[in-house]
Amino acid sequence: MSSSFSSFVPPSRVLMGPGPSDVYPQVLEALARPTIGHLDPKFVTLMDEVKQLLQYAFQTSHALTMPISAPGSAGMEAVFVNLIEPGDKVIVCQNGVFGGRMQQNVQRCGGQAIMVLDTWGKQTDVQKVREALQANPDAKALAFVHAETSTGVLNDAKTLCQLAQEFDCLSIVDAVTSLGGSELKVDDWQIDAIYSGTQKCLSCVPGLSPVSFSDKAIAAIKQRQHPVQSWFLDMDLVMGYWGKGAKRAYHHTAPVNSIYALHQSLLILQQEGLEKSWARHQQHHQSLKIGLENLGLEFVVDKAYRLPQLNMVSIPDGVDDAQVRSRLLTEFELEIGAGLGELAGKVWRIGLMGCASSQKNVDYCVSSLAKVLS
Amino acid sequence: MSSSFSSFVPPSRVLMGPGPSDVYPQVLEALARPTIGHLDPKFVTLMDEVKQLLQYAFQTSHALTMPISAPGSAGMEAVFVNLIEPGDKVIVCQNGVFGGRMQQNVQRCGGQAIMVLDTWGKQTDVQKVREALQANPDAKALAFVHAETSTGVLNDAKTLCQLAQEFDCLSIVDAVTSLGGSELKVDDWQIDAIYSGTQKCLSCVPGLSPVSFSDKAIAAIKQRQHPVQSWFLDMDLVMGYWGKGAKRAYHHTAPVNSIYALHQSLLILQQEGLEKSWARHQQHHQSLKIGLENLGLEFVVDKAYRLPQLNMVSIPDGVDDAQVRSRLLTEFELEIGAGLGELAGKVWRIGLMGCASSQKNVDYCVSSLAKVLS
Repeated sequence: MSSSFSSFVPPSRVLMGPGPSDVYPQVLEALARPTIGHLDPKFVTLMDEVKQLLQYAFQTSHALTMPISAPGSAGMEAVFVNLIEPGDKVIVCQNGVFGGRMQQNVQRCGGQAIMVLDTWGKQTDVQKVREALQANPDAKALAFVHAETSTGVLNDAKTLCQLAQEFDCLSIVDAVTSLGGSELKVDDWQIDAIYSGTQKCLSCVPGLSPVSFSDKAIAAIKQRQHPVQSWFLDMDLVMGYWGKGAKRAYHHTAPVNSIYALHQSLLILQQEGLEKSWARHQQHHQSLKIGLENLGLEFVVDKAYRLPQLNMVSIPDGVDDAQVRSRLLTEFELEIGAGLGELAGKVWRIGLMGCASSQKNVDYCVSSLAKVLS
Repeated sequence: MSSSFSSFVPPSRVLMGPGPSDVYPQVLEALARPTIGHLDPKFVTLMDEVKQLLQYAFQTSHALTMPISAPGSAGMEAVFVNLIEPGDKVIVCQNGVFGGRMQQNVQRCGGQAIMVLDTWGKQTDVQKVREALQANPDAKALAFVHAETSTGVLNDAKTLCQLAQEFDCLSIVDAVTSLGGSELKVDDWQIDAIYSGTQKCLSCVPGLSPVSFSDKAIAAIKQRQHPVQSWFLDMDLVMGYWGKGAKRAYHHTAPVNSIYALHQSLLILQQEGLEKSWARHQQHHQSLKIGLENLGLEFVVDKAYRLPQLNMVSIPDGVDDAQVRSRLLTEFELEIGAGLGELAGKVWRIGLMGCASSQKNVDYCVSSLAKVLS
């Protein structure tokens, strides 16, 4: 069988799908540096720097801010299994794929998910959320997706978190696609639990999930009546390793090289500055918008709440979705995203995330699409 | 705070602890290749190759053989959350740290762990396991650690799996430290569920956990009465992405670059040949043994069941554990492992795993230890 296999040399794609996005060359370089022990004093110092850089990226002073050693889906699970116990009620907003995944997580924790549903491509309706909170005064948490990767919708995180505060609920925020690309202020908005991914606007390799928990969230974890159902994601154990102070207890073997990469990508974000990064994502989105509209492509999401880093456009009548994407990939080495779930076959999702959010990529995407669609 | 941070350049350590072990330079090179999409056709081809190479490494034809996108602890959890349901009884053998972690996993699945305890540093007593199986005819599974990283003991996997067969139990095997370093034959020994890690005898970076499930294990998953408590580790969903055929459903974003690295390390293992790799680990263990005994250091584990890749020796009276390890690290760039759990402060654990199992490393370790202990 495998005797014919040889080393894998990937093609050099331009990654303008829903993630992974193009990775900074400096990040790939950092990734390949020699592995050291996960309890090495030099690595422990690096961990502390990563925590501080993540606090900057999230705009938080939460001490419990660190990367989970697995992709964003595991970050989501880390938040839910630590905060939600059997019988807990959670208001979950869904206007795309990832709200549905939150529902799954609540249910697998033995909790009850009260769904606030909005049409895919529309924003979560704040008034409906208020009504759900009024109807469920015993809800423990309000959970929603900040930037819906499946549709390109930005939900109003600030207002939703204010509502959670007003009704004395924990706020749980999916920031997988927003971190680094859209305004996000964990402390100002009083977000209690948040998770993200490395492979979107941080332009790092996929595989880690930055998370942050407020003191209120930590108090909820401490008051649990049932053990956390996941040993791997039990924050009390994880913090024995990632926690403050010189002493680090072995929990699991950290993905050492991926942490090098995350450190480097967070350094680049810090050097650019968060506000400048948000503005750059907006600027290239505007440029892409003009280019796509010149090709006759229409945005699905209202511009009032359109994500700059994830641009969803309708596939014109008579155009073969799979064929266009396949030609872009094989003839132009360009990846754009397909529609997910109920939007499959109907839309394309064009990402402008992290270092992929550049005028060069905008120009290349528009000119390549023009050739394939002509 | 962080404005003073700069790119992290790790020291070049020699990794002879309990893992991570030294990583092949070719693996680091593969790791840093350009990221491509997790649904890219080229990546799907790579996934298929990784599955076949893992089948070779595990010596199995099980179709459900793939890497979990997280470290070995998550591989352990993937096995338990998929196979064990509330009320299930599992015989768990413990003669070190990792049997205890299995117990935690069983309990967090709502199962009952029947413990077979043996002294740390001794082998699991097969007769006691037989008695436990006789006393618990309703046990669903027998779980044990093949190579106990915390003590350097090799448990008799072949005989234990025969016992599981005899009592119609599923066998669950922790092969984190054995895969690639010790004889391991999943099909011949009829292992039903097994998990490993990439950072031990595969000499790959930490962060992935190869797993394999037999048809009998898959049948047990299909007959579940309760949903799997983890969404991220639900094998039914994971296989929608890793499964056979051209169609791959999005589940989570695979750690693309880590998969490049795993592919490369498995290629190297295949090129060397499994039996030769096992023999090489044995050969350098013998050489290390002579060197350490010449220094007056005594092995704790009986040679009949001593692991070649993890050598546990007693710390001589009057020798300062932390000081010796610290001097080895700072003066010689050499990492060896401390004792874990009840063995903390009493032993050192010297790893000879993967490409770290070389005469060069043996010589360097013995000569460095000689200097520090003199």
